[in-house]
Amino acid sequence: MEKVLAYLKQNESRFIQELCDYVKFPSVSAQPTHKQDMEHAAKWLADRARAAGLESRLVPTAGNPVMVARTPRRAGRPHYVVYGHYDVQPPDPLDLWKTPPFEPTIRNNKIYARGVSDNKGQHLAHLNAVEAYIKTGTELPVDITFMVEGEEEVGSNNLAPFLKTHRDELRCEAFVISDTGMPSLDQPALTYALRGLTALEIKITGPNRDLHSGIFGGTVENPAMALAQLLAQLRDKKNRINIPGFYDDVKPLTKLERAEMSRLPYKESEFKKFLGVPQLTGEDGFTPNERRAARPTLEINGLTSGYQGAGSKTIVPSWASAKITCRLVPNQKPDKIFKLVAKHLKSICPPTVTIEVTQGHGGDPYIVDPTSRIAKAGLRALEKAFDAKPLLLREGGSIPILNDIKKIIGVDTLLLGLALPDDNAHSPNEKFEIESFRRGMQMAALVWQELVRES
Amino acid sequence: MEKVLAYLKQNESRFIQELCDYVKFPSVSAQPTHKQDMEHAAKWLADRARAAGLESRLVPTAGNPVMVARTPRRAGRPHYVVYGHYDVQPPDPLDLWKTPPFEPTIRNNKIYARGVSDNKGQHLAHLNAVEAYIKTGTELPVDITFMVEGEEEVGSNNLAPFLKTHRDELRCEAFVISDTGMPSLDQPALTYALRGLTALEIKITGPNRDLHSGIFGGTVENPAMALAQLLAQLRDKKNRINIPGFYDDVKPLTKLERAEMSRLPYKESEFKKFLGVPQLTGEDGFTPNERRAARPTLEINGLTSGYQGAGSKTIVPSWASAKITCRLVPNQKPDKIFKLVAKHLKSICPPTVTIEVTQGHGGDPYIVDPTSRIAKAGLRALEKAFDAKPLLLREGGSIPILNDIKKIIGVDTLLLGLALPDDNAHSPNEKFEIESFRRGMQMAALVWQELVRES
Repeated sequence: MEKVLAYLKQNESRFIQELCDYVKFPSVSAQPTHKQDMEHAAKWLADRARAAGLESRLVPTAGNPVMVARTPRRAGRPHYVVYGHYDVQPPDPLDLWKTPPFEPTIRNNKIYARGVSDNKGQHLAHLNAVEAYIKTGTELPVDITFMVEGEEEVGSNNLAPFLKTHRDELRCEAFVISDTGMPSLDQPALTYALRGLTALEIKITGPNRDLHSGIFGGTVENPAMALAQLLAQLRDKKNRINIPGFYDDVKPLTKLERAEMSRLPYKESEFKKFLGVPQLTGEDGFTPNERRAARPTLEINGLTSGYQGAGSKTIVPSWASAKITCRLVPNQKPDKIFKLVAKHLKSICPPTVTIEVTQGHGGDPYIVDPTSRIAKAGLRALEKAFDAKPLLLREGGSIPILNDIKKIIGVDTLLLGLALPDDNAHSPNEKFEIESFRRGMQMAALVWQELVRES
Repeated sequence: MEKVLAYLKQNESRFIQELCDYVKFPSVSAQPTHKQDMEHAAKWLADRARAAGLESRLVPTAGNPVMVARTPRRAGRPHYVVYGHYDVQPPDPLDLWKTPPFEPTIRNNKIYARGVSDNKGQHLAHLNAVEAYIKTGTELPVDITFMVEGEEEVGSNNLAPFLKTHRDELRCEAFVISDTGMPSLDQPALTYALRGLTALEIKITGPNRDLHSGIFGGTVENPAMALAQLLAQLRDKKNRINIPGFYDDVKPLTKLERAEMSRLPYKESEFKKFLGVPQLTGEDGFTPNERRAARPTLEINGLTSGYQGAGSKTIVPSWASAKITCRLVPNQKPDKIFKLVAKHLKSICPPTVTIEVTQGHGGDPYIVDPTSRIAKAGLRALEKAFDAKPLLLREGGSIPILNDIKKIIGVDTLLLGLALPDDNAHSPNEKFEIESFRRGMQMAALVWQELVRES
């Protein structure tokens, strides 16, 4: 292993140069004008993997190609898949960038460029680690396949079909992804759970047209008021979601999990200031970190009714609607929660209006047992590379592809994120710390050893 | 008086022809392209008044001119002002008209044209009645001024300045306006009260930007939920407005008023079908006719928050707003009610968000004592002309100019409306019954006699 780590160190300036070359491609998947840049970026990566000693190819999809690169298969070796994405977010607004988004610039040991943290730097760290094994003649304890797609920032629509078509080739012990975050360079983290989602829309209809509020007001239900009264009932005084059965399938947090959550940095005054709210709130009995990552929520995302222009229009609106998403935690199921919410809304809807509840998209919550073999291996690799005890993280958002991997390939994913909170992913002045890259490569080299160790 | 009524009868076909000429002008005040049509209509009316024997002129304003016509002033005679408006609503949607809106057509003893009921036919009835006095040499018991404006359908913005400038010329006993309605030709009506209005907008602000509902949801108040919970509290289980002091100044309905209201035609099944609602509702302890005309309301006119496009957007919106109008009844005051509502909202707003309540336009409720001298005179004129006991009506809407007249000229207004519920004012196929016109002219002749009678 010393040789591998030494190789990474010796070749660091080349690796940095290569990362700078890679992020020069404006591989913006959301913008059709960048179609050719997508292909150039994918081809650059395939060439890079080949130069690292892997067998690589671009696999066409209905959208952008998937770059697949593999170490030679050896009988009896466990196989792991490293996932990443070579597409990036649009760089707008351009005028907020200190240096142009596709002209990488190093300032203060940070590389500034669109996509450098999300996700080019992170999967390149893994590729460099594998190169170090190959070029130093060190035996890789596992077989590895890289699968790097080009549509993550636009919903990964062609990834599930790809997983299905290549199910045999991708059969493995687990996926490894570095695309999440860690609180700081002193606090590496393994993300073991993500929230799921169920989206819905409520439409309350009253009169068959907007009515003159002078002539008719007082004799018919106002659908906007009916909607407000329905929505208001969905939350109780303890800020719990007031829908029968909503919490039934929630897996309680373990002592270990709550202890880990309490280690997370959190300063109320800073958080409050960051969000710009006069006072924070949340479900009784849980800490802010638990509330935002480990507890289910019901959020109104939008309200629409009647007149919304300047001044006023004296109407009883014909209808009112609300968009809602519930964030779900293990083991809640999106369809079941949608049905519970819809049934409850219908049961409390007054007879003076009609209600329609439409189901939107959904996604399962995701969890890997933080005491499982692969989680422990990930934690050990992080601890060695960063020289600090890693945190066990739950994140509040969702990564839908994890559920596709679980459903189609049947395996868990190890989330070993290298992004820092101030990396400005999706924002102007995205950056990646050279230290994150350095430690990330070490972690990516160590993790294969840890994954085969008898723990 | 026989001569006057006979004259009206003898000249009826000419009067109908003249009304048809008058409604040919597309005097649509909302549309600048009709500026010249406005002037042509006003000039036609001034000429018509001159032909009827009055002294007439067009008085320029910052907008469309006001047509002023007066009978000769005689010392010691009471003076009354008849108000009307020569502007009309836009005729759209044109394809729903059976015959073109500005090509008057008589079918089934009804004249179809835009503006024929609202309001050209109604003020022309008054002018014809005065002509009958003049041309038959019958002594008019009062002096009369016609004041017919051209901006009623766009808010009468220049009317208050006009009233102020012409305060001396318009000093009178009362205004007389035929621009309201009656339930049917068998049920003439005097409108003695109208609701007032106070408009406001509530804005609830939470985080300083829309937040990712996965990353932050659960730790901050959702402003749309806070708004829903505030709005929901504004109405209690008896459908009363749940704001301290809101009803304090409401003048209770008298026995006479409730008895009159109960005479109004009302069929629940028809009303429900007309509005297209599954079930009617309203404040406990009051009938539907009382609820829509004699009781104050608080209506949400519009809701706005977050994402309103297709699909869903997983955000905690930064803010949420509601437009509200309260309909007011005597003796509620718009400013006082605004302050009560704003104060109450602020007192129940949670500390997790900020609230801003903005005052919009307002108007006082209007009431004329239905047992007053002028009201009784109006009722007698209606009864004689329509050969039926008239109803005492409260209407739920507002006519802001009545308050301008009250404030600036200092007098009440007698509302002797001739429009039928199916006249389609503001809608395609507006019509005016020839019978309404005929009886209206008789009423307009009789009312001057009744107003000077010792009752």
